[in-house]
Amino acid sequence: MRLLARHPQVRITAVTSRSETGPVSRSHPSLTGSLDVPFSNPSPEELADIADVCFCCLPHRASMEAIPSLLSAGLKVIDLSADYRLNDPAVYEKWYGHVHTDPTRLGNTVYGLPEIYGDRIRGRNLIANPGCYTSTSILALAPLLARKLIEPTGIIIDAKSGVSGAGRTPKVETLYSECNESFSAYAVGNHRHTPEIEQVLTDVAGKPVEVIFTPHLTPMDRGIFATIYADPIETVTQAQVLDTLREFYQGRRFVKVVEHLPKTKDVAFTNDFHVTARIVRGKVMLLAVLDNLIKGAAGVAVQCFNLMYDFDEATALV
Amino acid sequence: MRLLARHPQVRITAVTSRSETGPVSRSHPSLTGSLDVPFSNPSPEELADIADVCFCCLPHRASMEAIPSLLSAGLKVIDLSADYRLNDPAVYEKWYGHVHTDPTRLGNTVYGLPEIYGDRIRGRNLIANPGCYTSTSILALAPLLARKLIEPTGIIIDAKSGVSGAGRTPKVETLYSECNESFSAYAVGNHRHTPEIEQVLTDVAGKPVEVIFTPHLTPMDRGIFATIYADPIETVTQAQVLDTLREFYQGRRFVKVVEHLPKTKDVAFTNDFHVTARIVRGKVMLLAVLDNLIKGAAGVAVQCFNLMYDFDEATALV
Amino acid sequence: MRLLARHPQVRITAVTSRSETGPVSRSHPSLTGSLDVPFSNPSPEELADIADVCFCCLPHRASMEAIPSLLSAGLKVIDLSADYRLNDPAVYEKWYGHVHTDPTRLGNTVYGLPEIYGDRIRGRNLIANPGCYTSTSILALAPLLARKLIEPTGIIIDAKSGVSGAGRTPKVETLYSECNESFSAYAVGNHRHTPEIEQVLTDVAGKPVEVIFTPHLTPMDRGIFATIYADPIETVTQAQVLDTLREFYQGRRFVKVVEHLPKTKDVAFTNDFHVTARIVRGKVMLLAVLDNLIKGAAGVAVQCFNLMYDFDEATALV
Amino acid sequence: MRLLARHPQVRITAVTSRSETGPVSRSHPSLTGSLDVPFSNPSPEELADIADVCFCCLPHRASMEAIPSLLSAGLKVIDLSADYRLNDPAVYEKWYGHVHTDPTRLGNTVYGLPEIYGDRIRGRNLIANPGCYTSTSILALAPLLARKLIEPTGIIIDAKSGVSGAGRTPKVETLYSECNESFSAYAVGNHRHTPEIEQVLTDVAGKPVEVIFTPHLTPMDRGIFATIYADPIETVTQAQVLDTLREFYQGRRFVKVVEHLPKTKDVAFTNDFHVTARIVRGKVMLLAVLDNLIKGAAGVAVQCFNLMYDFDEATALV
Repeated sequence: MRLLARHPQVRITAVTSRSETGPVSRSHPSLTGSLDVPFSNPSPEELADIADVCFCCLPHRASMEAIPSLLSAGLKVIDLSADYRLNDPAVYEKWYGHVHTDPTRLGNTVYGLPEIYGDRIRGRNLIANPGCYTSTSILALAPLLARKLIEPTGIIIDAKSGVSGAGRTPKVETLYSECNESFSAYAVGNHRHTPEIEQVLTDVAGKPVEVIFTPHLTPMDRGIFATIYADPIETVTQAQVLDTLREFYQGRRFVKVVEHLPKTKDVAFTNDFHVTARIVRGKVMLLAVLDNLIKGAAGVAVQCFNLMYDFDEATALV
Repeated sequence: MRLLARHPQVRITAVTSRSETGPVSRSHPSLTGSLDVPFSNPSPEELADIADVCFCCLPHRASMEAIPSLLSAGLKVIDLSADYRLNDPAVYEKWYGHVHTDPTRLGNTVYGLPEIYGDRIRGRNLIANPGCYTSTSILALAPLLARKLIEPTGIIIDAKSGVSGAGRTPKVETLYSECNESFSAYAVGNHRHTPEIEQVLTDVAGKPVEVIFTPHLTPMDRGIFATIYADPIETVTQAQVLDTLREFYQGRRFVKVVEHLPKTKDVAFTNDFHVTARIVRGKVMLLAVLDNLIKGAAGVAVQCFNLMYDFDEATALV
Repeated sequence: MRLLARHPQVRITAVTSRSETGPVSRSHPSLTGSLDVPFSNPSPEELADIADVCFCCLPHRASMEAIPSLLSAGLKVIDLSADYRLNDPAVYEKWYGHVHTDPTRLGNTVYGLPEIYGDRIRGRNLIANPGCYTSTSILALAPLLARKLIEPTGIIIDAKSGVSGAGRTPKVETLYSECNESFSAYAVGNHRHTPEIEQVLTDVAGKPVEVIFTPHLTPMDRGIFATIYADPIETVTQAQVLDTLREFYQGRRFVKVVEHLPKTKDVAFTNDFHVTARIVRGKVMLLAVLDNLIKGAAGVAVQCFNLMYDFDEATALV
Repeated sequence: MRLLARHPQVRITAVTSRSETGPVSRSHPSLTGSLDVPFSNPSPEELADIADVCFCCLPHRASMEAIPSLLSAGLKVIDLSADYRLNDPAVYEKWYGHVHTDPTRLGNTVYGLPEIYGDRIRGRNLIANPGCYTSTSILALAPLLARKLIEPTGIIIDAKSGVSGAGRTPKVETLYSECNESFSAYAVGNHRHTPEIEQVLTDVAGKPVEVIFTPHLTPMDRGIFATIYADPIETVTQAQVLDTLREFYQGRRFVKVVEHLPKTKDVAFTNDFHVTARIVRGKVMLLAVLDNLIKGAAGVAVQCFNLMYDFDEATALV
């Protein structure tokens, strides 16, 4: 909402909620004075009368129940849930534990990672906005897999996230006094971003990619840091890896290939992705950061929106 | 539990819960290996068979429903809730919004602040363990009111607390991403520790004490910092105020009157209370700190327990 | 630099440093790709050849040594130090401990708080950018003093700041492990923002204003929270105080008078100032927040710059 | 000092400093009232007159310059620096960049990790206290290498530390506003704990062990979390790995092999080490935590001291 409120081609005409009413700024005081639309709960048809695009922020499952009627009503949809990210309904069912109720759209929906699929986004009606861990992992690894520098299996992604990634539903595990002064791992070996990462990287590599993905919770609001270990196909230097990254992202303004070790604070509150590489004992290491709430979620959604409508990709994002 | 587990005169025979079962270390992993008692839900009589004292950590209201039968069964009780802290049932009803169901015990229960009422604790059956803001405020102000150095009205207590004071029930307001990088005030003019502070200080001063008490939430786990402003009755120097504090707390091992400005970290994980004084534009200022989870709650409970049984006051606390 | 880099009427032509060389993004990695100017160390004349305005971020004392020659060379200057904020050289000497070497400019320099002195900024050559505690305190109190609702003496400002206010020079006191999990007071009764606050409020009130100002350090990056206590001249209601604040700031887009209790996070990374009021035991309480790095420093500097050149006041700030 | 102050068999007779004077509590206010010894700067002989053991907390290099004369004067020494940890002077020189000036003691000094070398500590005069990353890594991996469950090469240790590990010398990188809300890697591929880890693990495994060790800085005070990836020699189950860990540490009271995923907060302010195991895509994963200031430094030093003098290993540590 903050990003869209300052987008010159956007007017926010509705903010929907099934539980909240009254001014949006009541539950989001930081929007006081910049967004005066109240919460409402319109039908898809009512929404289509007053809006062109819907940024859909429902949880998975609720998303695939709502989106078909939004599309039927004539709205374009950018879906921030996981429901349209996977191509295969069976994979979806395995990882999410229930049947996909809109399976024909799987495989026909663009995965909204502009630096990988940017040329497919323009004019589309439905975009599956990527997960935050997913974007970090894919943007780091895609160039090296596409250019055949690293083996597609045995990849380890040791990822660290700020707590905002866990959402705003009250749970003991995300209370301040549980997270503060604590570092922990979770969902070891079974995090739902794993099949997303593998699906896109397999597409990029042209052969099956397999990763070990370990997410961790860090006592900070924002930021994802990924430390990635991969085996080179042939001996490779740090300079070659950095050059490959630079060449692959030539002209992509939100990707910065850097020489120094990046920190999550370098990209806080920005749509930037910073990555560097090192060679340690023969392994290729990638160290990558983004802000999970911007480049990892809302920012990339606005970036996709800009591409959908052929606006400058960076509008409202710098 | 951590403190009692290393108390040489204590054996923990039961940890009760109405909702949790299994090993206590499952929900408190830091106790792994040091406390092997499982959660249980015994009757007061069953409890009395295996225990002498009950540290009662129920919320207010639930506490006064449970405690009469614990006492009847022959247990001693140290109550960490607010239910037995106020002397007057009408004051209780006004601040807590419901009638007190055990009113005859109000006024006959010792307020468990050892530095003020220590000589009344030995051998008692029921102790009302004080609130964390309350202890900070009372320990700072009591000497100056007892020795008639400051006016009993117009006192401002601007207090700052770590988030652990809010407990472990999941709420949006105490989520990590809400509290972190944020400082806020709450319950301005109506926090329930106000009548407690005034009751004890009125007792100490021998005339009605009135305070403006403002609690704030600080992005840290532990600690209370109180900045207190009071009017001197006659002109007073910083040295006189410090001497009065020192004289009042002569021989009290957990109170340290310091010259420097104290920090909450100076007393973290200890049962210590640090306080200093300044004179600014004629006002007497007191700056005081304690750890809300130790001296402000569990530590003072153990201190009261030690006094109850005539053990060394500091057992398990240093 | 981040704000100016996205200002459509600004081109950053030099970033000066006496100690650093090379790309600015080397010491500020967050600027990677958005600011490609290297550090340089030009003379005032060289600077005047390539720039119109200088945002001067030197420490106090160094500032008044550099600024006269910058002005002589024809540059406009927005000074973020304290050197030109006080009107009286004797007051400066008392609080800063050394003689002011450019005393004739004191008293002729606009104090750059647009909501108070906005109509004096346009076209000026030298602006004294206000201190962060100062802006918070003045913006909260000015309306009530101007409209004669509160007594000008006996005002208590209990202020809490994030650690970024202490600057980037390495000191033990601002190390992570000293500040984290700790809350502390400092400069009690003698902080240098006191005379600034009193000078501007005296000007606004038309009679001498005296404050007790107590700064505290809070474990967070950004944000100032001020809890202010004042005596009403006559009995006043919360609604009257809020109405006075609203009327005074009518049309000022960065000031938001709110009903709820504000949090520092509500204004993080914005140029907004949020304030509310309460009446507690007859005292008028004001609770106010701003981001010390934006509205408290860099943001208000850009706001002054916009007013200086008659650009939209909010350019680059929303 | 805090741990030793409550050790029943210890009297602290001197706290030495070359730069500080006056009461120790002036620079360590948390010791107010519990340690009244002033800073002093005695000669080794003077020290030997009043002390039996010296806990030597000098930086590396300074340590090996001071320790020979402390030993000659008849003191026992527990050295918390890195100077006596490596057995080979050439390895020391390679990693620390200068010649070792006391090479004959290398190789004859016990590496003070009681769970590995506990039976060699009793009665010794010089103990090399292990590094914090080192203990975490070794305690997790030693059982699996000793029991030949995992390959000795290709081991990845992705470690995360709180900021206190960086010490108290003021540096820009460890300022609050640099570390807070930021996660970063440092010393990738060249951290000085690498040869220590390999030396001890090689000793345990009986063949050369090679690790890729990646340290990261986490915005918290205390705690190390290690996520370790290793290749099993033969297919192995999670239960087998956990059993091996349990069997190896049978009877070691500070090591807890747990089923759940541990968090650094579980061991904060304790001398405990918690570890668990998982099998992911055929890799053996170990997840381990300790408090870098206790089990990673001061606590293990006291544990070694207890073993040196045949006191109960846990004295002052629970």
